[in-house]
Amino acid sequence: MSRTTTIIGLDSFPIVKEGDNIAKLILAALNKENVTLDEGDIVVVAHKVVSKSEGRTVDLKDIKPSKRAQEIAKVTLKDPRLVEIVLRETRRTVKATTEIFIVENKQGHVCINAAVDKSNVEGADKYLLLPEDPDRSARQIRSEIIKLTRKKVAVLISDTYSRPFRTGQVEFTVGIAGMNPFKDYRGKKDLFNYELKVKNTAVADEITSAAELVMGQGDEGTPVAIVKNLQVQTQEEASAKDLLISRNEDLFKDAL
Amino acid sequence: MSRTTTIIGLDSFPIVKEGDNIAKLILAALNKENVTLDEGDIVVVAHKVVSKSEGRTVDLKDIKPSKRAQEIAKVTLKDPRLVEIVLRETRRTVKATTEIFIVENKQGHVCINAAVDKSNVEGADKYLLLPEDPDRSARQIRSEIIKLTRKKVAVLISDTYSRPFRTGQVEFTVGIAGMNPFKDYRGKKDLFNYELKVKNTAVADEITSAAELVMGQGDEGTPVAIVKNLQVQTQEEASAKDLLISRNEDLFKDAL
Repeated sequence: MSRTTTIIGLDSFPIVKEGDNIAKLILAALNKENVTLDEGDIVVVAHKVVSKSEGRTVDLKDIKPSKRAQEIAKVTLKDPRLVEIVLRETRRTVKATTEIFIVENKQGHVCINAAVDKSNVEGADKYLLLPEDPDRSARQIRSEIIKLTRKKVAVLISDTYSRPFRTGQVEFTVGIAGMNPFKDYRGKKDLFNYELKVKNTAVADEITSAAELVMGQGDEGTPVAIVKNLQVQTQEEASAKDLLISRNEDLFKDAL
Repeated sequence: MSRTTTIIGLDSFPIVKEGDNIAKLILAALNKENVTLDEGDIVVVAHKVVSKSEGRTVDLKDIKPSKRAQEIAKVTLKDPRLVEIVLRETRRTVKATTEIFIVENKQGHVCINAAVDKSNVEGADKYLLLPEDPDRSARQIRSEIIKLTRKKVAVLISDTYSRPFRTGQVEFTVGIAGMNPFKDYRGKKDLFNYELKVKNTAVADEITSAAELVMGQGDEGTPVAIVKNLQVQTQEEASAKDLLISRNEDLFKDAL
């Protein structure tokens, strides 16, 4: 028999303001679009709406760049105030050259501009940060949905990533609640009884990438998707940090 | 209104032998599982079944390692015959240290062991290479399906990738036929009329990752998935090479 997984983009999700309750907005959109939430569904939320609800917007006008930000701005040809915003979200500077500023951000993700983002933020000088603790945000949304519906769902918070070696971007998981981010085959047998040694599928990243296929970017404005009928392993104490690898453990260290 | 994409894993797909016609096997599995193929569907095929049908299996017993392979085998602690197989698929050696051998393979992918693979290959000393030209393989499968069904589908061939910075693996696209691998938002406007400057979604990679959610690895043996009701841009002259970035253009150069 064929297994069928369904991914539903909630097109009626509204524009989010600070203080909005994301879980309630999701349930309202589900209701409006006649989509039923089932036990085991996975709710994927673009970090932007979570960050907006948490008031994680910053205005360049309010930023006074430090001396270090001014120096990096000279090298990267970026607005020193933007560099200052990025530095405040940064744990370690990775690369600063002409028009490129890559850091390890406070959540541990190595990414461009510490994931500080301009698109779909109202106001010419306004930028959006990641949620302060995206796992906590995911847990809050999940608890609220479970409280209101009695359906045990999982929640993933996604963000857009440029990737080494490859063109274009995909969505990865930055916050997680209620599911194991991996499907680990190591130690299991393949079709011919050979023991798998490496295979540990990052299902959470695959789900956020899958969700983007119905979410869209630009002015499409569909920041929430529901993934149905997909078997994942329930895990109460999950963290998107498990998806990160330390530099020393990274097989690709010095390969780039 | 909500948009719904479905992903169907063809669980009745048989074990593939050299010379098998993948397109016909796909249509037979669709028929057996009562799944209708529609215009615009995307057929995702794990490279393994394509490689097997093309006879891209090699046996360690038949390999005489070169002097260079023997040297690299000493550093990487790998079987010199396996290193020789990898070298024959390699355009550039990227990193060779204890238990790690990363190369740029002939298709241009920077990956571990040149994507030479052991799992789900029958025979203790048998390894599987990528198809010689995965785009050509995808085009052949697509042409055959269109010929037999009159439905214009797209075909993606997928492979498993470890990624810099992140734990676990996801599926990326190594061969493509009939669709644009990207959805390019650059120059378009966001919700608040701000022009997007970077966003160029690698939809092909997102689709192969999504497909794996129903395909599975290990002994699940479901190497084909059908993605339905997803808008992608038809492109007759597509290539998975467009998903690769040269080292000099790679933003992450020297970042790892």
